[in-house]
Amino acid sequence: MTIHGPNLLPDHACLIVHGSDRPGIVAAVSAMITRIGGNIVAFDQYTDDPVGGAYFQRVVFHRPQFAADRPSIEAEIAAALDGFELEWSLTDQSVPKRMAILASQQDHCLLDLLWRHRRGDLPVTIPMVISNHTTAAEDVRTFGVPFFHVPSVAGPDKAESEAQLLERLVGNVDFVVLARYMQILSADFLEKLGVPVINIHHSFLPAFIGAEPYKKAKQRGVKLIGATSHYVTGDLDEGPIIEQDTVRVTHADSAGELTRRGADVERQVLSRAVLWHAQDRVIRHGNHTIVF
Amino acid sequence: MTIHGPNLLPDHACLIVHGSDRPGIVAAVSAMITRIGGNIVAFDQYTDDPVGGAYFQRVVFHRPQFAADRPSIEAEIAAALDGFELEWSLTDQSVPKRMAILASQQDHCLLDLLWRHRRGDLPVTIPMVISNHTTAAEDVRTFGVPFFHVPSVAGPDKAESEAQLLERLVGNVDFVVLARYMQILSADFLEKLGVPVINIHHSFLPAFIGAEPYKKAKQRGVKLIGATSHYVTGDLDEGPIIEQDTVRVTHADSAGELTRRGADVERQVLSRAVLWHAQDRVIRHGNHTIVF
Amino acid sequence: MTIHGPNLLPDHACLIVHGSDRPGIVAAVSAMITRIGGNIVAFDQYTDDPVGGAYFQRVVFHRPQFAADRPSIEAEIAAALDGFELEWSLTDQSVPKRMAILASQQDHCLLDLLWRHRRGDLPVTIPMVISNHTTAAEDVRTFGVPFFHVPSVAGPDKAESEAQLLERLVGNVDFVVLARYMQILSADFLEKLGVPVINIHHSFLPAFIGAEPYKKAKQRGVKLIGATSHYVTGDLDEGPIIEQDTVRVTHADSAGELTRRGADVERQVLSRAVLWHAQDRVIRHGNHTIVF
Amino acid sequence: MTIHGPNLLPDHACLIVHGSDRPGIVAAVSAMITRIGGNIVAFDQYTDDPVGGAYFQRVVFHRPQFAADRPSIEAEIAAALDGFELEWSLTDQSVPKRMAILASQQDHCLLDLLWRHRRGDLPVTIPMVISNHTTAAEDVRTFGVPFFHVPSVAGPDKAESEAQLLERLVGNVDFVVLARYMQILSADFLEKLGVPVINIHHSFLPAFIGAEPYKKAKQRGVKLIGATSHYVTGDLDEGPIIEQDTVRVTHADSAGELTRRGADVERQVLSRAVLWHAQDRVIRHGNHTIVF
Repeated sequence: MTIHGPNLLPDHACLIVHGSDRPGIVAAVSAMITRIGGNIVAFDQYTDDPVGGAYFQRVVFHRPQFAADRPSIEAEIAAALDGFELEWSLTDQSVPKRMAILASQQDHCLLDLLWRHRRGDLPVTIPMVISNHTTAAEDVRTFGVPFFHVPSVAGPDKAESEAQLLERLVGNVDFVVLARYMQILSADFLEKLGVPVINIHHSFLPAFIGAEPYKKAKQRGVKLIGATSHYVTGDLDEGPIIEQDTVRVTHADSAGELTRRGADVERQVLSRAVLWHAQDRVIRHGNHTIVF
Repeated sequence: MTIHGPNLLPDHACLIVHGSDRPGIVAAVSAMITRIGGNIVAFDQYTDDPVGGAYFQRVVFHRPQFAADRPSIEAEIAAALDGFELEWSLTDQSVPKRMAILASQQDHCLLDLLWRHRRGDLPVTIPMVISNHTTAAEDVRTFGVPFFHVPSVAGPDKAESEAQLLERLVGNVDFVVLARYMQILSADFLEKLGVPVINIHHSFLPAFIGAEPYKKAKQRGVKLIGATSHYVTGDLDEGPIIEQDTVRVTHADSAGELTRRGADVERQVLSRAVLWHAQDRVIRHGNHTIVF
Repeated sequence: MTIHGPNLLPDHACLIVHGSDRPGIVAAVSAMITRIGGNIVAFDQYTDDPVGGAYFQRVVFHRPQFAADRPSIEAEIAAALDGFELEWSLTDQSVPKRMAILASQQDHCLLDLLWRHRRGDLPVTIPMVISNHTTAAEDVRTFGVPFFHVPSVAGPDKAESEAQLLERLVGNVDFVVLARYMQILSADFLEKLGVPVINIHHSFLPAFIGAEPYKKAKQRGVKLIGATSHYVTGDLDEGPIIEQDTVRVTHADSAGELTRRGADVERQVLSRAVLWHAQDRVIRHGNHTIVF
Repeated sequence: MTIHGPNLLPDHACLIVHGSDRPGIVAAVSAMITRIGGNIVAFDQYTDDPVGGAYFQRVVFHRPQFAADRPSIEAEIAAALDGFELEWSLTDQSVPKRMAILASQQDHCLLDLLWRHRRGDLPVTIPMVISNHTTAAEDVRTFGVPFFHVPSVAGPDKAESEAQLLERLVGNVDFVVLARYMQILSADFLEKLGVPVINIHHSFLPAFIGAEPYKKAKQRGVKLIGATSHYVTGDLDEGPIIEQDTVRVTHADSAGELTRRGADVERQVLSRAVLWHAQDRVIRHGNHTIVF
């Protein structure tokens, strides 16, 4: 499969390092990259407290024949970071992440992701779209993407429905996007899934948590509406926020108009969150994200 | 006293009409204005439901010798609206509203209002600034504005403190602005004051209601912070919203940096709310505002 | 054909009035609407100079059996405006405008308009898409919209190419949208076409007029890029601006990244301009627009 | 003199490195910082082309007794960068830059800078304000800042006027801010001054270069107005852009209203540009800036 776009970088790797801050981390990492014949093309770091804080680093480096030499490179990284209290992970920037999309009846976020992917603007593959409705089937398949229908069920059969999702997803995807999926996933499901899940909530969280945020926004008389993309955790609408944005509304905008205008913000916010996650720009830390 | 600025309009009046929608309101109002020799220079209307909804209208008209002929003009308005279920109010657009500012230690909103007033950008007079601290006294007096110090007290003496405020305010001002005043005013105070009170809250309400919103925003890890200007009611941070705005922040911004960036949004949002209120552009309706 | 969406209003009409300002216009129009049994649901007016300026008015009114009684209603309007120096036009708000889209290889604006139309967010019909390339044919037809291929030719055969466009468009459409069409249309073409043409230019006009604005923006080192939707006139990129917006960029964004981010702004700006035009909210006046 | 604010960092230094990109720069710099006992607290880099491009790096590091040991630290830096084609500069982050402000009759940018400085939000000292009018004298002195009046003269005596400016500025300031100074400075003046000059232009450059941009914006009918802060060069309004922003306007906004709304954007944009310059975040490269 050919992946288009400027975002996949042959012979490039991304090293994420995080843990306790201490002098010498940049020197250790950069010396190691020089030693293995790499060249740093992007470097970001952040410390949440200069004294005893948590440290976060993202380094993208070019290294000819990275994929072939990866085992020895990983050994070099482990050696360089020996003695620091740091965790690290390494990703091959020439390999797209596999992204499943879960959708429902609202199609604006779904189509926007499919369209951006086709343009080459998202460094991912999309092995499947799963919906609890069938309305989007033809649209999705027009993009050459497999479509599966897994109906949502409430009550005792919910576990069965989630089991069907897991059967399709586990092992086949690197992360899951809820493109206005509108179903609450159980903590058990999230644990069995084992990969990050990104949601788009149609409000500026923490305002208007829960169902029908546009209706609540209309009732409160706010002058801006927003959207929030966050990682899904067991606590509804409480996961680490990746990206947010707002748009101006007035008293004259009906709840329907809020929904229409909000849809534009939702798809923008979700697409940025997905892009940054796919580029390994987002580091989770407790209930926060560091976005480089 | 000379009032500068383009916003005070000699021989102009603003008529606000609101009540039950019914065909013929515009015709009745505009025919009346023609009849009295006026010319409409601004016209806005809004109905929250075309069928049986509430109706809101703001008309600014030019009428030579408005002030002299006001009694007969008011009689014409009453006659024109007879038979409709409408309330109305009339203001002379050549007369600035009298605005008191209540402030505390933070001076950014206070100075911004004083500075805009001096430039002629706010169609108000400022008969007094009252603060529960003395730090701003010299700054305020440099602008030629009287400064009073009324210390805030908690507990049983709070009523005494509010009485001192009322003594200075009642009868002397048309509305009050809380420019980061940081004290909760009692329902009893608001009732005795009898004029609108505009507050600036340093968050995008209804997110982060109550104290220390920037700290809460940092804890939640939001990617935007905001400010909200609203009319004060007995319910803390729940009054009708006049204006809101947001600004982008990142994980790297400390709580102090949020405070610094938020200050810019606060003064912008408050100054817009004050301007619109001073221009009779804001109509309260339940817990909402219509802003024309 | 059934048209979905809240924007088509049965038994509603929009009256646009513009010309020389004079007292009594609102009264004359509103009395007439009351006389014919109509109810005003939206009213906007603007005067560019209170003394001797140009006057613009947009009134939407509900009138049962508008379509059937239109001739007599038009006679009432003409009578009511007799004696004023005003032009007027009347549109039936239950009838969608017919919008043709001209496109080229870039598909983001094209697909966005087709998708918004399918959602019911644009009160138009789309009788055809014409492209000078064939790449979008299948996408367009998936939306149930006819697709025609008319190659662009430079030099002496350009007139022939434009003649093919005219043959398809004239009489069949109420306005034309250039969705990144990237071809300059001759003054002769515009005259023969005889309906408004809306373009999207990929810069914040008047900055970066002409070809390759993102490249020019990169060269100049701007910190924001933008998009501008305007009516097309014989002067390239000089027509009346309907809508504009900008988005923040940095030194680190390549020209390709500017193009990617700009695409989002372009489709947003164009969709707003198209919606407002379709709703008769935009009045042209010289090289300006009044947008109600 | 006591300097308030979180932006002055005792025992912190900022190293700016730029030149030809080559593998090993990060390793060389970070190893050197470790060697001298420093700890990196902020690190940014950018390459405009991975192959043979220009390289830019900003490193802030903490080093006890930096000021005392500066000569030996500079020798270490020179040694570390030996063999690379790089220029570098080092600044002590505990020492505020000395900023002169040149102003004219419009006071909004001037007062905003003075007020931010008093709050401790700008890591600078302000040794003087020079104006070609006397109107701001008392305001400036209220902030405890010296005020000088140097009238502007056109024609043959312009050199004399500039000589008076130079006499006050040269040797006493590290950079100069034109806070709506509205006078064109000669190339000769800029050369003799020898320090960076930051201007605020009241348009979104390159739109509306030259005089009266709000009037031009009104004439063109734009839907956004903006402001641009840039380094001053011999070419009017063509210097490297540091920061820009825009704000929405409508057909109904008069040229006066554009001026009023623009003033808010101007002071915001200028204050950000000044802050970033004062923090050594801005690197000039040809006609561009890299802003870290």
